[in-house]
Amino acid sequence: MRTQVAIIGAGPSGLLLSQLLHLEGIDCVVLERRSASHVRARVRAGVLEQGLTDMLARAGLGGRLKAEGLPHDGFTIAVGETRLRIDLKTLTGGKAVTVYGQTEVTKDLMAAHEARDARVIYEAEDVALHDFETDRPKVTFQKDGLSHQIECDFICGCDGYHGVSRASVPRGAITEYEKVYPFGWLGILAHVPPVDHELIYANHGNGFALASMRSHTLSRYYIQVPNGTLAEAWPDDAIWRELKIRLGPEAAARMETGPSIEKSIAPLRSFVAEPLRFGRLMLAGDAAHIVPPTGAKGLNLAASDIHYLSEALIAHYREHSATALDTYSPRALARIWKAERFSWWMTMLLHQFPDLGPFNAKMQQAELDYLSGSLAAQTMLAENYVGLPY
Amino acid sequence: MRTQVAIIGAGPSGLLLSQLLHLEGIDCVVLERRSASHVRARVRAGVLEQGLTDMLARAGLGGRLKAEGLPHDGFTIAVGETRLRIDLKTLTGGKAVTVYGQTEVTKDLMAAHEARDARVIYEAEDVALHDFETDRPKVTFQKDGLSHQIECDFICGCDGYHGVSRASVPRGAITEYEKVYPFGWLGILAHVPPVDHELIYANHGNGFALASMRSHTLSRYYIQVPNGTLAEAWPDDAIWRELKIRLGPEAAARMETGPSIEKSIAPLRSFVAEPLRFGRLMLAGDAAHIVPPTGAKGLNLAASDIHYLSEALIAHYREHSATALDTYSPRALARIWKAERFSWWMTMLLHQFPDLGPFNAKMQQAELDYLSGSLAAQTMLAENYVGLPY
Repeated sequence: MRTQVAIIGAGPSGLLLSQLLHLEGIDCVVLERRSASHVRARVRAGVLEQGLTDMLARAGLGGRLKAEGLPHDGFTIAVGETRLRIDLKTLTGGKAVTVYGQTEVTKDLMAAHEARDARVIYEAEDVALHDFETDRPKVTFQKDGLSHQIECDFICGCDGYHGVSRASVPRGAITEYEKVYPFGWLGILAHVPPVDHELIYANHGNGFALASMRSHTLSRYYIQVPNGTLAEAWPDDAIWRELKIRLGPEAAARMETGPSIEKSIAPLRSFVAEPLRFGRLMLAGDAAHIVPPTGAKGLNLAASDIHYLSEALIAHYREHSATALDTYSPRALARIWKAERFSWWMTMLLHQFPDLGPFNAKMQQAELDYLSGSLAAQTMLAENYVGLPY
Repeated sequence: MRTQVAIIGAGPSGLLLSQLLHLEGIDCVVLERRSASHVRARVRAGVLEQGLTDMLARAGLGGRLKAEGLPHDGFTIAVGETRLRIDLKTLTGGKAVTVYGQTEVTKDLMAAHEARDARVIYEAEDVALHDFETDRPKVTFQKDGLSHQIECDFICGCDGYHGVSRASVPRGAITEYEKVYPFGWLGILAHVPPVDHELIYANHGNGFALASMRSHTLSRYYIQVPNGTLAEAWPDDAIWRELKIRLGPEAAARMETGPSIEKSIAPLRSFVAEPLRFGRLMLAGDAAHIVPPTGAKGLNLAASDIHYLSEALIAHYREHSATALDTYSPRALARIWKAERFSWWMTMLLHQFPDLGPFNAKMQQAELDYLSGSLAAQTMLAENYVGLPY
């Protein structure tokens, strides 16, 4: 098999890249280890920056997003009795975010690929990357018991943190940075109307809580739990009870509860591997970096990688330039580190840290007090939340 | 001896309080452990917020400050090859700071007290605070071998971190918060023109450096040194050499050097004791809190305490209100914690931390990158640097 760009991973990063390259006449093959139904069913975040919604529109996928996505002009931070609304639209001169589940983004991208009968190969086993330090990289894999080989110009690793792409880079060529937080998020998805029309982030003495949503009838809630907690240890009733405590009496009075249709615990981690390019292999999205979910940056940061990567690949093919791809890693990383900083900062601001110590706990409280009184501090939060410019 | 307000400590806090109260007809006695010449000679910081210059003008001390103080509309942050000017005036809608040595502020305050023959008692030994939990507090001290007693309505503890005032509070009544940084500032004062007309804060791989000044002919420089360093271990030449490295080649080319007329090492610490009021004893300034000097907040924060404290005492005497003084501690502390946060943040941003770890070092770098590109972040820095509103 021969293609121009072999894309490893059929999550939103890989499929978005494939779609953007296809529109420019660049041929791609997407390899995915899991089945299509598994990919389609994955529950993930769902707060989209303007940059991502613009990119999806450009990729011809703006229709359902526009019809069903919920524009959010702000959100609330709840600390003790105080409620601080961050007015994203006013603070950023008109920008906002759109609530639209990552699951829905993936479905739209899969549908577009199916409609044009694109080469997306699911259940590709034993994927291996070869010769990406040369001009003739290759990808091999097993499918239905047969061995296959793809010859290509470039390999794009969009296969997530545990994928084969980053693991294929020689150890000495890559530097990894990591911070593990002493807690995770226990998430619950339920067919109930959201408690508020916007998101509520709470920093309560018991820990962080987030009231989020996927639609007007589907709510997503999270509570901070210590590392090592098992989701089974938290029956639905206990989660709802804890959410009511952490989100405060006003939200509790309005909160509709119901049986969970999904319940899981995600650890919180900051991770960056750099650089993003190794000869003719480029990494993008979770394959190269993880953010704690507090700032809703995971999917958006993958999208900004795809923005820079697609631009670089398109320039390479249009201009027959050997250097166009040199821009990818530094441009993407400059924005990645800023988003890592923001996600880290927002995580530090809104969680209870068991070993913070009295002085640092006061610093957290002072930062929240300062934020509630300073337009500059609110603008800083807002401009990062809606997404820094590409 | 009888007075309305006994003030412990004749530093800028104590003398400013005494002066402001005197203007309202409130009688004060100021007790100082050291000699007048010792107090006059102390070298301290010298970046004054607008709030402090306004207060000094109100106290009738604006003349020399206005003639000799240097208005600074901005400062520079130097990181590697990059130079970022923080345009205080533009970012804050017209606010700025004034460079005028704390030594000069003290001299002006001392002169005003001498001019009106105010009761400032220097070399007061064995000062002891009594009965401040009752309506009849007393202060006793030794002077020239004789025992004295002051009966008063209130005691104001303006005697610094090591003073007797905070030490007189029962341990259970006070909560202390502290952070010690793993370095100090080695300061050098020299009769040379400053390297720039504004301050330069540098974060270099070798450590922090600050190019500051007291006047057009008197320069004050600092370099970060590890805790435990002795000033004698740093001959003048070595300090100038290090300053040139840390401030960069452009500044080095312009820098005039000369013999130090003062050289000392100050440790960096964050400290807050709360509350600030214990019956009829009130703490203010360094007696209650210390900031690392990075944000130039020490003297300014003492001044804001004196603002709130003088207001409360004046209201007490004018309105014969028993509750006016209840406002002092919460009002002052709200501003103290924000200034502590800012000083801590600016210290974390601009120093090299030996045990920061690779991820946190990247966070520091990302914060500097973000700051250089974001007006909101620069505004946040500027509004804190010129001083949050009282």
